[in-house]
Amino acid sequence: MRHIETCLSPDLIHLHDLADRTVVIIDILRATSCFTAGIASGVEHIVAKATPEECIQLRKQGYLTAGERNGMKIEGFDLGNSPFEYMKAGGKKIAATTTNGTKAIVATKDSNNVLIGSFLNISTIGEYIREQTNDLLLVCSGWKGRFSMEDALFAGALVDILYEDFMLTDDASIACHSLFLSAKNDMLLFLKNCSHFNRLKGYGLHEDLQFCMTRDKFNVLPVVVGGIITKG
Amino acid sequence: MRHIETCLSPDLIHLHDLADRTVVIIDILRATSCFTAGIASGVEHIVAKATPEECIQLRKQGYLTAGERNGMKIEGFDLGNSPFEYMKAGGKKIAATTTNGTKAIVATKDSNNVLIGSFLNISTIGEYIREQTNDLLLVCSGWKGRFSMEDALFAGALVDILYEDFMLTDDASIACHSLFLSAKNDMLLFLKNCSHFNRLKGYGLHEDLQFCMTRDKFNVLPVVVGGIITKG
Repeated sequence: MRHIETCLSPDLIHLHDLADRTVVIIDILRATSCFTAGIASGVEHIVAKATPEECIQLRKQGYLTAGERNGMKIEGFDLGNSPFEYMKAGGKKIAATTTNGTKAIVATKDSNNVLIGSFLNISTIGEYIREQTNDLLLVCSGWKGRFSMEDALFAGALVDILYEDFMLTDDASIACHSLFLSAKNDMLLFLKNCSHFNRLKGYGLHEDLQFCMTRDKFNVLPVVVGGIITKG
Repeated sequence: MRHIETCLSPDLIHLHDLADRTVVIIDILRATSCFTAGIASGVEHIVAKATPEECIQLRKQGYLTAGERNGMKIEGFDLGNSPFEYMKAGGKKIAATTTNGTKAIVATKDSNNVLIGSFLNISTIGEYIREQTNDLLLVCSGWKGRFSMEDALFAGALVDILYEDFMLTDDASIACHSLFLSAKNDMLLFLKNCSHFNRLKGYGLHEDLQFCMTRDKFNVLPVVVGGIITKG
């Protein structure tokens, strides 16, 4: 039977085997929600870069720049880190840098089957994984290496969709599933004391938060190939 | 108001500030349960060492050797890693090496206020912390760097005792608390699919497991000073 593992922080990726795994990158607030919304809205592709400077260099190749640091839009960039901004960028290419999402994408570059996960396309992700045969690794981006609740809730929601098809013996996956079951009736309420959720709420981003925690707005499957996020 | 943080793996300790924190080392199955049971039963002190060889060298200074690798007693050692063995070693000094607990003790050596936590002395730990004024860092030993459910449940149980005295904004601490609330009515049942619990159950250690998940068998406060565990 297939196995699920959950990596609770990019700083723990060395503990996991990436070969022959389907990997799902999770950064619910807000990178992977943005990438899903963008690809679903006709963004041609997105390149994830570690630094703002690398994004700016890509402008001459026609890229829009997108990114945040500590949850705030980078000065001079075309887009910040809101899914609503990505949804207006249909037909464009985006060079994006984010605090945590990019780190997880870089950390999983040795896998050849990497998906971008978000609540916005969770059922599409679940259906795709169910049709595969390999094991599954869910990679939570967290916040500067630390555990983030919203990423764990997504991992748990995906486990909830998939657990009948998988062997569930990994403590981190079991924990995320339990957290999701506790939270699922009102995830926004469950997140009310959590750190990054509160940080973004403090910036007046309530609409973004609500949107990022909504299931199945899109039925797109964004994949990462050579650091480039595109339609799978 | 004071803060609680939970470090879910020794491999994440670099994300946490150890200065001026009360640190609780958690390795429920079974190192910190053993250390608590030993100190409560009159063991003079316990030194935690990284390798079996270092333990063997201490024999000539009158130490008993204790330790496990992958949950099994090290060949030729006086004790394995069962709290019942530690409870028979009153009056002795023990040189111990364990897979995960020692790693957490080494990782937190820069703190000058380190406690050994277990369900066996959770109320004593809670009372002591409540009387302090500094912030709290709970360090889960995990399993070879990975998240372990039983350590998270203990962190959550301690949060449950303390949360009215602390600011609870750290996602990992909130997660452990939620897991504990889901598990508390039957922790052994909750752990039934969890990896290390199952590994030890497979070795026929059901009595150890049951004992290690029992609250308040002892009212001792073991502390770590310069790598030596002794009565606080």
